[in-house]
Amino acid sequence: MVENSRRAVLGGLGAGLAMTLGPARASAADRKVGYAIVGLGYYATQQIMPAFASCDRSRLVALVSGTPAKLDTFGDKYDIPASHRYSYGDFDRIRNNPDIDIVYVVLPNSLHAEYSIRAAQAGKHVMCEKPMAVSVAEGERMIAAFRQAGKKLMIGYRSRFEQYNRLAIDLARSGHVGPTRIITADHGFPITAGQWRLDRSLSGGGSLMDIGIYSLNAARYLTGEEPVEVSAIESTDRNDPRFRTVEDRINFLLRFPSGIEAVCVSSYSSSHNSYRVTGTGGWIEMSPATPYAGQAMSIHRNGETTPRTLPPGKSQFAGQLDHLAECVINDTTPIVPGEEGLADLRVIEAIYRSAAERRHIALQAM
Amino acid sequence: MVENSRRAVLGGLGAGLAMTLGPARASAADRKVGYAIVGLGYYATQQIMPAFASCDRSRLVALVSGTPAKLDTFGDKYDIPASHRYSYGDFDRIRNNPDIDIVYVVLPNSLHAEYSIRAAQAGKHVMCEKPMAVSVAEGERMIAAFRQAGKKLMIGYRSRFEQYNRLAIDLARSGHVGPTRIITADHGFPITAGQWRLDRSLSGGGSLMDIGIYSLNAARYLTGEEPVEVSAIESTDRNDPRFRTVEDRINFLLRFPSGIEAVCVSSYSSSHNSYRVTGTGGWIEMSPATPYAGQAMSIHRNGETTPRTLPPGKSQFAGQLDHLAECVINDTTPIVPGEEGLADLRVIEAIYRSAAERRHIALQAM
Repeated sequence: MVENSRRAVLGGLGAGLAMTLGPARASAADRKVGYAIVGLGYYATQQIMPAFASCDRSRLVALVSGTPAKLDTFGDKYDIPASHRYSYGDFDRIRNNPDIDIVYVVLPNSLHAEYSIRAAQAGKHVMCEKPMAVSVAEGERMIAAFRQAGKKLMIGYRSRFEQYNRLAIDLARSGHVGPTRIITADHGFPITAGQWRLDRSLSGGGSLMDIGIYSLNAARYLTGEEPVEVSAIESTDRNDPRFRTVEDRINFLLRFPSGIEAVCVSSYSSSHNSYRVTGTGGWIEMSPATPYAGQAMSIHRNGETTPRTLPPGKSQFAGQLDHLAECVINDTTPIVPGEEGLADLRVIEAIYRSAAERRHIALQAM
Repeated sequence: MVENSRRAVLGGLGAGLAMTLGPARASAADRKVGYAIVGLGYYATQQIMPAFASCDRSRLVALVSGTPAKLDTFGDKYDIPASHRYSYGDFDRIRNNPDIDIVYVVLPNSLHAEYSIRAAQAGKHVMCEKPMAVSVAEGERMIAAFRQAGKKLMIGYRSRFEQYNRLAIDLARSGHVGPTRIITADHGFPITAGQWRLDRSLSGGGSLMDIGIYSLNAARYLTGEEPVEVSAIESTDRNDPRFRTVEDRINFLLRFPSGIEAVCVSSYSSSHNSYRVTGTGGWIEMSPATPYAGQAMSIHRNGETTPRTLPPGKSQFAGQLDHLAECVINDTTPIVPGEEGLADLRVIEAIYRSAAERRHIALQAM
């Protein structure tokens, strides 16, 4: 299954069906920025693409896929003209399509750097899914390429556009429950076999690259600091056919310059989705913390635990899409630029190194 | 304050007031085993001593304290005859008091070994508070002394006699939510200044020796395994007057032979009291997990979270006292003997070493 799904992706990349590019047809009157989605998997088609309907500044104008049937299905569903449907062989011709302002890269992790850089070289801004790349070196190359091209790079950290997570950041950093002392952050799910995520050559790693990154990113955004010490222990059953090339569980400890410690779970064999910020005077809990929808917050202060609810707001998906669109319109820098993705990768490499070398890894304050 | 409280304890130890031992007066008719409590601090006087009223097999027959006023107050309150009230200078004369079967050592940690061993040499069985000692070497010396004396040594792991924790052990080990994959266990409280616990010469360490040991012990009793890999990161503000000699936060990761990983919090500057056992099919949560009373359990299975309640049962304090009493009556081994305390100390030393040497510590399977 893993091999099959890998072949499907790579075969698609090489297929190179020549498709005719039509003339630029999008009107500028609606002042919406045009997105091309690259990679039509579950996340792109079921979460991102439906969100354009609630966007104020973003519209879906093009699709890129290695699977002609997907281009047909989703092209028709979203009224994408044939001229705006691309195979991977056609990809670089997006340069000639002025309707496309932003390319959203939703490919397997090991393809993020290549397609993001090619998009920048084709004159496009990029939204790239997290993790931005499979190594710090790749991430740095991406940032350099975007600087050279004068294009914007944003990483798809959707939780930063989700209202409960934004509130949690405000409350934690403003000392609502006293100065933060401990953050616990747990993310995981029992993964099913047969996905590209379980093939290291496509994913670059296991649970940490995919779901544990939410624990890591939360620890960083809830503190606003970069960790200076990292320790991790991995536990993977290599006889489990899912885990032949990637790790299952890799839990980690982070120490931040202010003394805050984060205690994090990353698992591919059990379900976790929560975090808790504990200060000297109470705690802020999100459970679940980072699902596609349905976040729930509780706050414990003065001996009482109370739920905290917000009126329904813009979805994190629409918020994320519109944020980069606004950055393009106003020529500002996204709140989660390439450097944010690189900061995670730097810690991710330290986590893997700690687990492999069985020692703590010191990181320089950035 | 720390210095004062230390002096009070040590002064008490040296005071050596000679008190007259009366004749053995306890009747054997009620078939209750007689306890002497050594150390009349908060835990002894407010939690342990009131529990004798609900014991079936245990009775309070003697008190040992360095503070005459406490001997007066609690001796009168519990009808302890003057002949059964001892100063530390008198301690060894417990050998001549046949009413005392068991000595319960509730002293500062660094005194556990000495008083436990002296009790064994006086022909008494011992209940010793956790941590059993301040080092593995001391713990081993205690076990050897009890073996030589032919007396029983039990460590005061009260949660093993608390019905929700017992149920959690059964559920976790029987795979009620599938095979366990991750255990998170968080314990801590904001400690107030001026306690012997903050003086390393009495406590042997900070939050880990006092409250983090609950996270560690839970991870061990919920798995029934001994960890083989340990990693810990400490975070202590040495400018905080509370933490001049002991650590504040020391969080740790444990890997067990079956692959289970535990992710644990130990804090002296924030409140935590919970654990969660996550299996492949759900989780068992205790929150709070190990208070003196009021444990609450929730179970998540098949997508639903439900509270699990038990009818009120015997208190953990009475259960613990009666367990050793029954072991004495029936000449059996306690479920938490000295070896259980030693197993914790072995991991505690590894946690401290990991934090200090910034590397993972491998432990041999026991």
